Amino acid sequence: MAGKQSSDHQTIIDVGGSKIGGDELMIIAGPCAVENKVQLLSTAKSVTKYGAHILRGGAFKPRSSPYSFQGLEEEGLHLLQLARLETGLPVVTEVMDTRQVELVGEYVDILQVGSRNMSNYPLLKEVGKAKKPVLLKRGMNATIDEFMWAAEYILSRGNDRVILCERGIRTFETAYRNTLDLNAIPMLKSLTHLPVIVDPSHGTGHRWMVGPMAKAAIAAGADGLQMEVHYKPEEALCDGNQSLYPEDFEKLMQELKILAPAIGRSLSFRKAVLH
Amino acid sequence: MAGKQSSDHQTIIDVGGSKIGGDELMIIAGPCAVENKVQLLSTAKSVTKYGAHILRGGAFKPRSSPYSFQGLEEEGLHLLQLARLETGLPVVTEVMDTRQVELVGEYVDILQVGSRNMSNYPLLKEVGKAKKPVLLKRGMNATIDEFMWAAEYILSRGNDRVILCERGIRTFETAYRNTLDLNAIPMLKSLTHLPVIVDPSHGTGHRWMVGPMAKAAIAAGADGLQMEVHYKPEEALCDGNQSLYPEDFEKLMQELKILAPAIGRSLSFRKAVLH
Amino acid sequence: MAGKQSSDHQTIIDVGGSKIGGDELMIIAGPCAVENKVQLLSTAKSVTKYGAHILRGGAFKPRSSPYSFQGLEEEGLHLLQLARLETGLPVVTEVMDTRQVELVGEYVDILQVGSRNMSNYPLLKEVGKAKKPVLLKRGMNATIDEFMWAAEYILSRGNDRVILCERGIRTFETAYRNTLDLNAIPMLKSLTHLPVIVDPSHGTGHRWMVGPMAKAAIAAGADGLQMEVHYKPEEALCDGNQSLYPEDFEKLMQELKILAPAIGRSLSFRKAVLH
Amino acid sequence: MAGKQSSDHQTIIDVGGSKIGGDELMIIAGPCAVENKVQLLSTAKSVTKYGAHILRGGAFKPRSSPYSFQGLEEEGLHLLQLARLETGLPVVTEVMDTRQVELVGEYVDILQVGSRNMSNYPLLKEVGKAKKPVLLKRGMNATIDEFMWAAEYILSRGNDRVILCERGIRTFETAYRNTLDLNAIPMLKSLTHLPVIVDPSHGTGHRWMVGPMAKAAIAAGADGLQMEVHYKPEEALCDGNQSLYPEDFEKLMQELKILAPAIGRSLSFRKAVLH
Repeated sequence: MAGKQSSDHQTIIDVGGSKIGGDELMIIAGPCAVENKVQLLSTAKSVTKYGAHILRGGAFKPRSSPYSFQGLEEEGLHLLQLARLETGLPVVTEVMDTRQVELVGEYVDILQVGSRNMSNYPLLKEVGKAKKPVLLKRGMNATIDEFMWAAEYILSRGNDRVILCERGIRTFETAYRNTLDLNAIPMLKSLTHLPVIVDPSHGTGHRWMVGPMAKAAIAAGADGLQMEVHYKPEEALCDGNQSLYPEDFEKLMQELKILAPAIGRSLSFRKAVLH
Repeated sequence: MAGKQSSDHQTIIDVGGSKIGGDELMIIAGPCAVENKVQLLSTAKSVTKYGAHILRGGAFKPRSSPYSFQGLEEEGLHLLQLARLETGLPVVTEVMDTRQVELVGEYVDILQVGSRNMSNYPLLKEVGKAKKPVLLKRGMNATIDEFMWAAEYILSRGNDRVILCERGIRTFETAYRNTLDLNAIPMLKSLTHLPVIVDPSHGTGHRWMVGPMAKAAIAAGADGLQMEVHYKPEEALCDGNQSLYPEDFEKLMQELKILAPAIGRSLSFRKAVLH
Repeated sequence: MAGKQSSDHQTIIDVGGSKIGGDELMIIAGPCAVENKVQLLSTAKSVTKYGAHILRGGAFKPRSSPYSFQGLEEEGLHLLQLARLETGLPVVTEVMDTRQVELVGEYVDILQVGSRNMSNYPLLKEVGKAKKPVLLKRGMNATIDEFMWAAEYILSRGNDRVILCERGIRTFETAYRNTLDLNAIPMLKSLTHLPVIVDPSHGTGHRWMVGPMAKAAIAAGADGLQMEVHYKPEEALCDGNQSLYPEDFEKLMQELKILAPAIGRSLSFRKAVLH
Repeated sequence: MAGKQSSDHQTIIDVGGSKIGGDELMIIAGPCAVENKVQLLSTAKSVTKYGAHILRGGAFKPRSSPYSFQGLEEEGLHLLQLARLETGLPVVTEVMDTRQVELVGEYVDILQVGSRNMSNYPLLKEVGKAKKPVLLKRGMNATIDEFMWAAEYILSRGNDRVILCERGIRTFETAYRNTLDLNAIPMLKSLTHLPVIVDPSHGTGHRWMVGPMAKAAIAAGADGLQMEVHYKPEEALCDGNQSLYPEDFEKLMQELKILAPAIGRSLSFRKAVLH
């Protein structure tokens, strides 16, 4: 079901009025984790102001150490809902546990399945029954083939709104946090009708690499981007090094707006209606 | 908590009278998946007869494709319980969903967390609250450090009976299914007091490689082995190519019995009391 | 010596009137191997016509099997010289043996050190003494750090005209021949003053992926591209699957000309003066 | 030519009276680099005393940085010859440049082609014409298939005395210097008639891992070992961390002597005749 039936078979998914999978590029931005009201609202308003289409923010955080900040959990969901009301932006957040799918689905517009859970099949089956689009991130060691099969788990349960996200694979190279694999973009676009986006923040781990790799992702044919933006990256509870300052995000959005038509796409900033 | 306090700090775990982590080697054997009563009992009796200490068998199977055999699920648990009664062997099976931990724990002696779920933190937390030992398999792309942290998730929830299992990592090499990483054995034994075993079946994907790599694992210092044995590998619903015939298993057990004292360990076959 | 002294420290190398390392993009194109006069001249004339700046073609071919075509060797050098005369294009070819460096240097404008020889230190020292620019390809398993050190071998022997080329690394992914690592572009551009180009042909192994990845490379900040073009790819003695048809190359050059200004670069087609 | 004709087809190579490829294990030991007369002779006498069959020591050293110690070069060859006379042990050293093959061949009993040069085909062809056995180390990123083809380059030039050496591959894991891939042992033994040895020193990078991995290698079926021993590892110019103290080597040799018969092999210490 994830495979293309013909060369022009393409799924377009509408999220709160923004469409992904067509000519228009979709930009998802926001902090790694929801930390508190000021942090989330401040960051959310910035990304809204500069044209983002969707707000990201983690309420449940998968961390290597059990002693690291694990997210605000349900309180984080409430804050995301508040940010949604204040900015008008649809919201995406990660769900990690089959028992949380229903709850999380009540608060957000897109359910994210993270890289560590790409092969968590019970979770894939559960989001496959949800009534929300799913943003499925490629596992750090997943082949293209396995990534497609993971999407198939969701599609085969009845949810046909799946967005694939390349976010870096694990290789021998240690100069970057992960090795963002842009080869996956043309390969996936040739194999599947599902929209494909790129996360250059996790894919590189360095703030200053996000811009060049975001542009490269678009040039390679990605349908959108997911990027981490924080109102004060140096104070972030996680992933500060890879989070853009709001002014970096503004500059990059301007550059992407220029780049898009040069490769036959377009980028329309979402009209901000801040409350 | 997973780290060693001193060089001779070592956890020994008792499972149904067999101890793991001391001088004695522990052998876990059985089919990849529980397929039916005849297959399970026949295989279980063979591995019991040849000296295995614990029976393995999957009731819930994580498969790349949603269209592949997903396991007998609760029926599989019933069959495992039956095999346990008939052979007297303790049983280990994989649990994949936080919602299944309690149920599965009622049927088996050891809860297995598979490679694909090593970074499924909600699941690690849940088995950390269970009253059963946990067999934690290394993720295909997990560093030693991340593997240790995954164990810490379980220990930090109060379950101090964790057995670590190296089962092959993903590399560029395609001659084997995975690259069994025996370097992990001395490294883990130096870092943690937890028992460490090796799965040469998944680690290589080839039946004929299981013997040499099982012996190598023991020589490297592993506390035990987990191996796939099937009464008719050519008819297996999964992993037939890497499953030993009962006679292969018998021969290997004899070889391991000779090898063990040469590296300062011992292997005592479990006394079979078949019903 | 390969490291940057300041953020705007940048080496610009002139090859036959075309400059690499500045705002202008440099395009190297031609067949994988020099096969015969008709093949080389026909392909050379096509790439010249469509604006390439430098002609590539292998006279000595490193092949995994000793029974595969090993290149025309010295006859190949003669044909490259002929193509150079007919098209006016400077020529680059690979040198593999310390004993060949002087000979090859008499025929070509740039000496290429291939991926397999990036850590062949005697060869690096030898091309370090040559009077020609060196195109140094990243090893399939070389870290950015090792790549920089390999360049240092050449620079430290007195040759300061080194062009770095990312051409794909080896990972677990088998959907592409190599995993073209575009992260290397911003990383290298931040660390070194040397020009950095990308080879999307070897980097992907698929003709249809060359276009998207070439564009992505430029968007990521590459100073140029090296691409395989063959007048009849289906008859190529090596790498036919990843070689562009002349008309693919023409189309891609047009697309790159539109893309370049959108990211602050420019692409001027070399004025063809065919004889 | 590297492939097996039948399941019992096995090449046995005689080096100075010690045979490799049969039931007997062959042990190669010595320092990473030849540093000076005292260091080489002192170390050589120790390894001779404890039963090694062949002395190793690098005269030409491939180093990542051009500013690191590059070896004593021809002076190193003289010292190896001296050590050979004093201990009676045959000697192996690395050759990196086609132009050195003849010279090095005059001084030593085995020519080593290092990991970085496994795909240096001109060098393989040149040692293929030499009259000495060749110790070919697997490239850090070489598949089993490519390793076999590299051996084929040597065999096809007329030199049928090739010893294959697994020495660790490059993976994502950073806890060890390389990931020693013992899976390669049964795989190579099934595919080729050539002897296969293992280098646990480079394979792990940690002195304390050499013993367990050496034993594992033998248990997996290796025909021998190459290990780094230094009379004063803490003063070594290279690889001190992975070099055994002479007393470590003595202890390990005793352990291997006990292990060998348990897996159907034997280890006979070479009778030391020190001058």
